[in-house]
Amino acid sequence: MTTSPMFEQASVYFQDLRDRICAAFTALDTSTFERTDWQRDEGGGGVMSVMRGSVFEKVGVNFSSVSGKLSDDFRRQIPGAGETGEFRACGISLVAHMANPRCPAVHMNLRRIETSKGWFGGGTDLTPYFPYEDDIALFHARLKQACDCFDPDYYPKFKAWCDKYFFLPHRNEPRGAGGIFFDNLDTVDAELDFSFVQAVGEAFLATYPEIVARRKNEVFTEEEREYQLVRRGRYAEFNLLYDRGTTFGLQTGGNPEAILMSMPPLVRWP
Amino acid sequence: MTTSPMFEQASVYFQDLRDRICAAFTALDTSTFERTDWQRDEGGGGVMSVMRGSVFEKVGVNFSSVSGKLSDDFRRQIPGAGETGEFRACGISLVAHMANPRCPAVHMNLRRIETSKGWFGGGTDLTPYFPYEDDIALFHARLKQACDCFDPDYYPKFKAWCDKYFFLPHRNEPRGAGGIFFDNLDTVDAELDFSFVQAVGEAFLATYPEIVARRKNEVFTEEEREYQLVRRGRYAEFNLLYDRGTTFGLQTGGNPEAILMSMPPLVRWP
Repeated sequence: MTTSPMFEQASVYFQDLRDRICAAFTALDTSTFERTDWQRDEGGGGVMSVMRGSVFEKVGVNFSSVSGKLSDDFRRQIPGAGETGEFRACGISLVAHMANPRCPAVHMNLRRIETSKGWFGGGTDLTPYFPYEDDIALFHARLKQACDCFDPDYYPKFKAWCDKYFFLPHRNEPRGAGGIFFDNLDTVDAELDFSFVQAVGEAFLATYPEIVARRKNEVFTEEEREYQLVRRGRYAEFNLLYDRGTTFGLQTGGNPEAILMSMPPLVRWP
Repeated sequence: MTTSPMFEQASVYFQDLRDRICAAFTALDTSTFERTDWQRDEGGGGVMSVMRGSVFEKVGVNFSSVSGKLSDDFRRQIPGAGETGEFRACGISLVAHMANPRCPAVHMNLRRIETSKGWFGGGTDLTPYFPYEDDIALFHARLKQACDCFDPDYYPKFKAWCDKYFFLPHRNEPRGAGGIFFDNLDTVDAELDFSFVQAVGEAFLATYPEIVARRKNEVFTEEEREYQLVRRGRYAEFNLLYDRGTTFGLQTGGNPEAILMSMPPLVRWP
């Protein structure tokens, strides 16, 4: 399967965004990112960038670009996979777990997937353990701003999609304070879709480091740290029980260390 | 659905075993068990016994006795559920996570399930983080002894079943050092099946406290403790990704605190 110009552009953007995010996070901490390349047997691979610092207890930013043939099972579920099942996918995926319990955790993912069709997907959501209304409002306002430039329906639709997706039925609880989530974005204008994806990436980069800067030096108690470790259990439960990226990746023979990079560094189940 | 004499006997035995296990564990620690009753909306309930001590970092022993009607989906999977889907189930379920990384974690479960048919299931398996050959050999020898009194095929069959069940495909790793696992035990002699289940319970009670007594005062390093926390991640991954009891319980609206009692108290994902 030959690559498309849009796929190439998205791939370049995701890697550039990764570099700028890593630079912004490094500026807030006293540590640096370590990069590890990984290869996928069936084609492609990626680069994991991980920092363990005093502000970012553990943050992983993964860039991947893979291709291959979908199994029969997945072929039926994926638009345009057709008879051959050929696909290619590239994306950036980020999860940050913070040392300070007053600093929210965050997840961000943007991806381009191509079969005989092509589309974008992704989103970002904030998981505060001690919710500051200011942080949550800023996060949502910046995402709304990015969405509204493209379509007034995007923000309400993608916010609701996020709330629905990041929900733990067995706890009857949302995972965090929400954000946006979208998939199968394939309008008449693919260039505009790509611009929207970039706007989401830029909104994330403009906002999350600002929230970290606000909270990273807040004083916290041992009890608050313990509460953070317990609440991180919900994050772990969500990822292993429900997250499609995690369960899909593990079931299809992906690299468990790269897939489980999203797991919190330290978790308490009380 | 009226209860059967065998169900009643099993229920009495499981509660008595629970009491004797709790007494044996308490004798090894400086803490005591706290008991919490819980009710299930659709019928029945149970008692969770939890101890957090200096030897047993967290041990939960759950007795439950529930009844109701299986959903259409499960009705097809469960022997003898027939058109009504009526079932009752009682059992003891135990998971111990130890403070000392040289003390193995353990899981044990015994259950009686009745629909229009009736059968036993259960098993026990050991998860050492620093494997002592002596401990593993003793654990398996005692289980083999219990099995061999009933059927020479039981131990090899149930050991293989355990190895197959407690396996993490995404890591290509066994969860621990194995043990035995069996289900749908329903021979021509239900009394003999019940005797076998009791023999497994007694073998567990005779063996695991002995292993704990051997290891609880071993000196360990901070690095060994960290290694234990990381290996506990595999335990958490298994429970949330693969364990049928956990995923079944969470999907069918069970009490998440009781179901997730098996989760390790503190876990590190590196």
